[in-house]
Amino acid sequence: MTETDLSANYAAAYNNRIGFGKKPALILIDFVQAYFEPSSPLYAGVDAALASALRIREAARAKGMPVILTGVVLHPSGLDGGRFFQKAKPLACFTADNPLGAWPHGLAPYADEFVVTKQYPSAFFGTSLAPLLVSMGVDNVILTGLTTSGCVRASCVDAMSHGFITTVVGDACGDRHPAPHEANLFDMNAKYADVVSEAEILEFVRSL
Amino acid sequence: MTETDLSANYAAAYNNRIGFGKKPALILIDFVQAYFEPSSPLYAGVDAALASALRIREAARAKGMPVILTGVVLHPSGLDGGRFFQKAKPLACFTADNPLGAWPHGLAPYADEFVVTKQYPSAFFGTSLAPLLVSMGVDNVILTGLTTSGCVRASCVDAMSHGFITTVVGDACGDRHPAPHEANLFDMNAKYADVVSEAEILEFVRSL
Amino acid sequence: MTETDLSANYAAAYNNRIGFGKKPALILIDFVQAYFEPSSPLYAGVDAALASALRIREAARAKGMPVILTGVVLHPSGLDGGRFFQKAKPLACFTADNPLGAWPHGLAPYADEFVVTKQYPSAFFGTSLAPLLVSMGVDNVILTGLTTSGCVRASCVDAMSHGFITTVVGDACGDRHPAPHEANLFDMNAKYADVVSEAEILEFVRSL
Amino acid sequence: MTETDLSANYAAAYNNRIGFGKKPALILIDFVQAYFEPSSPLYAGVDAALASALRIREAARAKGMPVILTGVVLHPSGLDGGRFFQKAKPLACFTADNPLGAWPHGLAPYADEFVVTKQYPSAFFGTSLAPLLVSMGVDNVILTGLTTSGCVRASCVDAMSHGFITTVVGDACGDRHPAPHEANLFDMNAKYADVVSEAEILEFVRSL
Repeated sequence: MTETDLSANYAAAYNNRIGFGKKPALILIDFVQAYFEPSSPLYAGVDAALASALRIREAARAKGMPVILTGVVLHPSGLDGGRFFQKAKPLACFTADNPLGAWPHGLAPYADEFVVTKQYPSAFFGTSLAPLLVSMGVDNVILTGLTTSGCVRASCVDAMSHGFITTVVGDACGDRHPAPHEANLFDMNAKYADVVSEAEILEFVRSL
Repeated sequence: MTETDLSANYAAAYNNRIGFGKKPALILIDFVQAYFEPSSPLYAGVDAALASALRIREAARAKGMPVILTGVVLHPSGLDGGRFFQKAKPLACFTADNPLGAWPHGLAPYADEFVVTKQYPSAFFGTSLAPLLVSMGVDNVILTGLTTSGCVRASCVDAMSHGFITTVVGDACGDRHPAPHEANLFDMNAKYADVVSEAEILEFVRSL
Repeated sequence: MTETDLSANYAAAYNNRIGFGKKPALILIDFVQAYFEPSSPLYAGVDAALASALRIREAARAKGMPVILTGVVLHPSGLDGGRFFQKAKPLACFTADNPLGAWPHGLAPYADEFVVTKQYPSAFFGTSLAPLLVSMGVDNVILTGLTTSGCVRASCVDAMSHGFITTVVGDACGDRHPAPHEANLFDMNAKYADVVSEAEILEFVRSL
Repeated sequence: MTETDLSANYAAAYNNRIGFGKKPALILIDFVQAYFEPSSPLYAGVDAALASALRIREAARAKGMPVILTGVVLHPSGLDGGRFFQKAKPLACFTADNPLGAWPHGLAPYADEFVVTKQYPSAFFGTSLAPLLVSMGVDNVILTGLTTSGCVRASCVDAMSHGFITTVVGDACGDRHPAPHEANLFDMNAKYADVVSEAEILEFVRSL
């Protein structure tokens, strides 16, 4: 099976483009030290994704767009990480006060940004992110963050399911290996979200 | 980048095996005609996955294990499919009374099985599946169904997030193309669930 | 303690009026035969509430407002009613095909209305009602139905929590006894929703 | 209508007793300074409820029962309180770093206890409390806290809906006025939970 074969298979059914909404919000998923510190079990070498997300965030802020940052914080016992903590051993990086949970250089939240603390892959699961967005009248969630195959994918499925037009900025997402990164962008673009480039999202944001 | 390279990358952090629970339930996700009827936009040629799931279901029933079947049913307008209906055009197969939503041969639900009607990828999203399982004391969700890259993956993330030990039977899941099938089994096994074979799950079920 | 005393106590902190939204939807909660059939354990004698809700519905339809009807439907075993079915014995009225679950005279859903089947008190719990409303851009949920102290109250808390401006039409809600009806309108108006009369809601709907 | 009349009305249908589970957890809802500080808009004079909850907590800890404390914490803008913040003005007490959100004397969480931060009435809404309990195998939620007509009631409906046997300790719950306290204990006991005394819950906990 070739890549051409896969594209042809999906072209018949999926990859429909839905466009942007009228009131977007920008989400930065799990950009925390654990993915940038080389000694961390979660190290992913994703500086380019962070740099892209920071550029998008500045453009968003210039237009007054709501910006939400997420991070995982767990009880020292890990018990509030439930089955995720049991299965995914690197979650031990995220117990409270672990420096690997800190924001990396350039990402300290501004006072008017929202920080959503989560325990599971999706930024929407077990958090009040959806009602925050609904009560602000947001209709479009723009996703950036880490990792593409993990918390970005889970958040994308939930953003779409909760009723938001969902846009994923491929350039501003990253993963520990290019294969899951690409495979998950493919799945998300097929069925759940428009996957766009940094240039496309910047053009949209600046047009607001 | 080779497959060996990817395996080595993940072996350092993921693929931890968590085992089975004490009170499992079997879920059959979206085994409906739309995936079996050659003229359907969702046709996937996944008879082998259905045959596998039916064998597991018989073993589960012999042990009195709860069995839940899911299917998508939408209002004729598709509006209750929200952003999913807007993005994923083949969802038009699932408006109420469309014959593509019917159960395929061999899958008519038994009177003691539960049918969960859903509108979104995850069997847990917008349904009362989680409280059904919690109130029955279920601690382990065994997933089979269609498609691996779609509703099985979404249901896997949610089953795990809701607090259930999650097991995915690779042989009893299917997709329209082998690449997303394999990529999603890889992701699920890495972080969310144990991916097992039909032989492994049958051995477990028969040991109950 | 007198009623005056209670009013004074709350006036200092609660009963803030929030007004209406820009895109409302009308919800009719659990108007089913079980509350109208004198031999039913749920009989509540609430014909006036239904008549009020039907007048509001006609006004809403004339403006193209989305209308959603809810009802409880359970598996014959009641197991999908979980702890609710175990605690609240009259839920036995709502197993599938029980005539007490039928729509009463005048309430057959129109083809463009949505029917949400639920298993728990809140119309939002274990259903896809919230994403239906979010994806349609609804910002205001107008609640009518049965019973004030049960499913209306639970749905009100959830409507507000999910991010919708919440309005409860007292005249179009009913209960089996006036004391819980009044006590729950009091609580909802204090903290969660504006409780309004039929005349007030008709004036608002006709102004759209 | 007399109270006798109301009791007779409900006796025919409700007030079924369901008993306790096998693995309970204790929840202390929103015992924060805002309810104990006389100058606070939320002042409720509920020292007796706190004292009762503290006695139950010690008994629970002696048996190794999980203990969870909840509190409301909001962004300085209040925007993450959504429609609740807009409607219920005293929520302004709960913006981050407001001393009214602090734990009162005697309630500092132990290191093995869980603190769940919430933005809405229910301890389960927009939090990961349900998966914490599910993954620990908890089948019975014992509720204490403030206020009976607000966050206790909302948490009770959700605990029951999520699949947990729900027990409310009337003596360990409190409100700003006795009328809503009693009316909500009545509603909860009728349909959602067993309402028990401190003596009853202590006897159960000590029997574990």
